Amino acid sequence: MDPSLGSRRAVLHGAFDPDSFFRSSLAELKADGRYRTFLELERRAGAFPLADVPGRQDSVVVWCSNDYLGMGQHPVVLNAMHEAIDRVGTGAGGTRNISGNTRDHVLLERELADLHGKEAALVFATGYVTNEAALSTLAGLIPGCIVYSDALNHASMIAGIRHSKAEKRIFRHNDVGDLERLMAADDPARPKLVCFESVYSMDADVGPIKAICDVAEHYSAMTYLDEVHAVGLYGERGAGVAEREGQMHRLTVIQGTLGKAFGCGGGYIAASALLIDFVRSHAPGFIFTTSMPPAVAAAARASVAHLKASSTERQSHQKIVADVKSRLKEAGVPVMPSETHLVPVFVGDAHLVRRISDELLEQHGIYIQPINYPTVPRGTERLRITPTPLHTGEQVEHLVEAVVSVFQSHGLSIGQAA
Amino acid sequence: MDPSLGSRRAVLHGAFDPDSFFRSSLAELKADGRYRTFLELERRAGAFPLADVPGRQDSVVVWCSNDYLGMGQHPVVLNAMHEAIDRVGTGAGGTRNISGNTRDHVLLERELADLHGKEAALVFATGYVTNEAALSTLAGLIPGCIVYSDALNHASMIAGIRHSKAEKRIFRHNDVGDLERLMAADDPARPKLVCFESVYSMDADVGPIKAICDVAEHYSAMTYLDEVHAVGLYGERGAGVAEREGQMHRLTVIQGTLGKAFGCGGGYIAASALLIDFVRSHAPGFIFTTSMPPAVAAAARASVAHLKASSTERQSHQKIVADVKSRLKEAGVPVMPSETHLVPVFVGDAHLVRRISDELLEQHGIYIQPINYPTVPRGTERLRITPTPLHTGEQVEHLVEAVVSVFQSHGLSIGQAA
Repeated sequence: MDPSLGSRRAVLHGAFDPDSFFRSSLAELKADGRYRTFLELERRAGAFPLADVPGRQDSVVVWCSNDYLGMGQHPVVLNAMHEAIDRVGTGAGGTRNISGNTRDHVLLERELADLHGKEAALVFATGYVTNEAALSTLAGLIPGCIVYSDALNHASMIAGIRHSKAEKRIFRHNDVGDLERLMAADDPARPKLVCFESVYSMDADVGPIKAICDVAEHYSAMTYLDEVHAVGLYGERGAGVAEREGQMHRLTVIQGTLGKAFGCGGGYIAASALLIDFVRSHAPGFIFTTSMPPAVAAAARASVAHLKASSTERQSHQKIVADVKSRLKEAGVPVMPSETHLVPVFVGDAHLVRRISDELLEQHGIYIQPINYPTVPRGTERLRITPTPLHTGEQVEHLVEAVVSVFQSHGLSIGQAA
Repeated sequence: MDPSLGSRRAVLHGAFDPDSFFRSSLAELKADGRYRTFLELERRAGAFPLADVPGRQDSVVVWCSNDYLGMGQHPVVLNAMHEAIDRVGTGAGGTRNISGNTRDHVLLERELADLHGKEAALVFATGYVTNEAALSTLAGLIPGCIVYSDALNHASMIAGIRHSKAEKRIFRHNDVGDLERLMAADDPARPKLVCFESVYSMDADVGPIKAICDVAEHYSAMTYLDEVHAVGLYGERGAGVAEREGQMHRLTVIQGTLGKAFGCGGGYIAASALLIDFVRSHAPGFIFTTSMPPAVAAAARASVAHLKASSTERQSHQKIVADVKSRLKEAGVPVMPSETHLVPVFVGDAHLVRRISDELLEQHGIYIQPINYPTVPRGTERLRITPTPLHTGEQVEHLVEAVVSVFQSHGLSIGQAA
């Protein structure tokens, strides 16, 4: 360092102070009711949905897990993971290109391509990374590409589209007419990519897949469907809502996760061999990253294969979801409309939803995380309940009683029994 | 869909054809020698660095893994992973905020904070995600922040800085004078963040940590040091080069990976409690993603704890690295200068480096992935050898003979023995 610069030190008294910046920014979040406290949870294999919480004698019942079917403790999945560790160890040891491409990754991708009836699939570290990497690569490298994005798309899709720097049109949520109006106004020769979801996890509604494919095909647009909250859960083999509605073959790209209903971790896209090869060859978020531990890939593959063959879990899931919804509604709890397995309960205030969640945990041993801005719009703060086939009738009973009791104690209107 | 629009279909004959675009883009990569073919590899736990390759009778010796110490098959690490699976299952079941914050994550972060002598740490899905999420959040949300970035920083840091949209100054690689010149020209009151690496994996050189900290402190700048190729390997407890050089306490943020020397998967930052809380609260790539499988966190923690206490692996590693370098140099192989455990061997042509790699594999059972553009500049294509403590003397002997033989068969100049 040039020692003559020592004389400038005085100037720097006005310099930026990171600590006070971080402190005041965090204070703002707290005042706003948006500061997140992570509950430390010890899941118990074999006892799902029970978990332990430090400082609490008895277990709590988890009612907000995305391990929608409890596959994260299924013997087939656990065994596959154990077996892979014994066979190949823990980490992958490199990127897919540099020594990190194991047979477990290859077989998992083959399984996923088959699941979605596509030629190929590509696995990423997480669902978030999948959307970021795939969309920024596709929309960013296809010259002149215009992206049409549903207004309620997940943060990871928004990140991918933003990072692509492609021109973007936001269409009103699930509004095919609005999408068509936007596409009709654009140059027919420009490449087009329509991005949407099948299950929107916060509003628990479903994208109009067939109608969007109709419009997209008319305008020769590619389609990119996020099925992260649907894979494993819908369709005859658990490929998602597009499978249930017979639309799978019409979608250019289907994106999914291995971390929710499949109970493991990681994300993927399934598409034509050419498209997959293109993304594989160009996406920095894929190329420059150690591939997932082979044991996680092996566990995920076992889970996908199991749910492809077995519908039992899906049927029990649908049954308990219907049961929880109707029991809560009958008890007058403000369940928000839901066409899916997600059961949002309206509260509408950031501080209140946090207090309700705390009391459910402390007084009733029920864990439901509050959902706040920016995950949902301000004023629509909510609880989001995710019933699984492993919740018992008794646990459902207890849930309904507890929610009613806590809502009443806060003077929240509980409607008439249906 | 409006049926009247059917009449426009004719126009669409000129529409974009994705398949032919993907095909021609991939053909370009192939012509350029940059098309990547992933070698399918079956690592063998207990037999590292041996692995199996489909269609090949005998095992190959892996010489390019980033599992630098073979911790991915260490019994302590495997046992921790097995134990966690039996205890809590496979996946985390949610984001850190929504039911995915397990005791294994909390303990791992505590271990990492301790390793680096910082108040706190935060774990992400991968090292790539760590840099992208932490840098885009810090540089993006600190008002008026200027980022000073080493010219050879990794793609993930570049992505994070780019996504932050902060003003950016690139300083010449490892050139502290250039960094100082840039900082001196900027407003002293503006927040500043200097981003650099300790070990640059492609050139195998080391960042001038002390000198950069001197300049950064002078200008009240924050510092962000990527130690992904150094953690586990350098310093008394394996905290990296900053530990070895007594500079750890001066760095604002230390970033590392659990996927290389620690042999598992995932990435992290260690810093002040306030900074960690800020990133935790704001980074979309952290907030909106399922947390890593608890068993991976448990395995990583066991690996970090082991290498904190044991220096045996680091010492054997340094010894074999020195041995491989000197043996290759003595045999006249063009080893590029390296201050680190990485042994780059110059080839300088994309097609040739690929052919050499193929022949090493086919004729000698040695796997060294070629390193091409964009990972390194065109004309500097190379092999990169990563010796580990688990390679035997016999394997070193075999490596040297094989490299010499293949280089000679391609008429590459092999120098005089030293």
